[in-house]
Amino acid sequence: MVRRVSFFLSIIAILLSSSSSSAQQLQRSRSAQSINAIRAVLDAQRDAWNRGDIEGYMEGYERSKDTVFVSGDNVTRGWQTVLERYKRNYDTREKMGVLTFSDLEINLLNETSAVVLGRWMLKRAQDEPHGRFTLIFKRTKKGWKIVHDHTS
Amino acid sequence: MVRRVSFFLSIIAILLSSSSSSAQQLQRSRSAQSINAIRAVLDAQRDAWNRGDIEGYMEGYERSKDTVFVSGDNVTRGWQTVLERYKRNYDTREKMGVLTFSDLEINLLNETSAVVLGRWMLKRAQDEPHGRFTLIFKRTKKGWKIVHDHTS
Repeated sequence: MVRRVSFFLSIIAILLSSSSSSAQQLQRSRSAQSINAIRAVLDAQRDAWNRGDIEGYMEGYERSKDTVFVSGDNVTRGWQTVLERYKRNYDTREKMGVLTFSDLEINLLNETSAVVLGRWMLKRAQDEPHGRFTLIFKRTKKGWKIVHDHTS
Repeated sequence: MVRRVSFFLSIIAILLSSSSSSAQQLQRSRSAQSINAIRAVLDAQRDAWNRGDIEGYMEGYERSKDTVFVSGDNVTRGWQTVLERYKRNYDTREKMGVLTFSDLEINLLNETSAVVLGRWMLKRAQDEPHGRFTLIFKRTKKGWKIVHDHTS
């Protein structure tokens, strides 16, 4: 009897540990998917920028009046206002230059939010401005989108 | 019989809605507590700074090698390194000046993480440097702590 109980207990233990390890695997694969999806948003932003498509670049941001872009001592609030700021500051292909992102660190805070730290650089004929950005991404119905961008 | 069923259904509906509204109330009061706790961390940082206590100011940051301070194109990583940077850049009371934070916007991402956007200013004899910060706070065993600071 004791043997039989311990046999069943072993079976239960094996089942529990395999279900918890498959839950962990699922969690890891979901996280990997999220990280890949966020990286894809940034790649698409870079590609849009480098074909002179600021609207395409702006697809990376959530279309919300709460979307925020911070730079220096200025806060630009709302997707439309951020778009207008980009259009004003980069009104020629020369000013847009060639954008690269590097040193990306994507940290998931939970299943629906993430922080990204990265480096940006513009190669232009006259100069090469560069700096860092901290992005807050949220998972929305339309995929992962930037809701907060602090660029320096 | 139909009456009795509809009576019991009403009771169940009332119980469910009151339990969901008290869950909402609990959620709201927890969020308010978190927001107050984060505000208290920032108040304590300002007070420490204004008595020339950089170690006290650093209590607001998580004591971790992953804690990150971003400014311009520079990333300073690790609590100890961030402390040393502050000590190097603000090696006299005159340089520290009087710190104020304003326009604080505290957004909880979930029960254990939050984003804070705010404004900082130093009143000094010779100048008044100022800018914005984006902070990522995490709820740790030692309370809410900054894990990521992007200041411009």
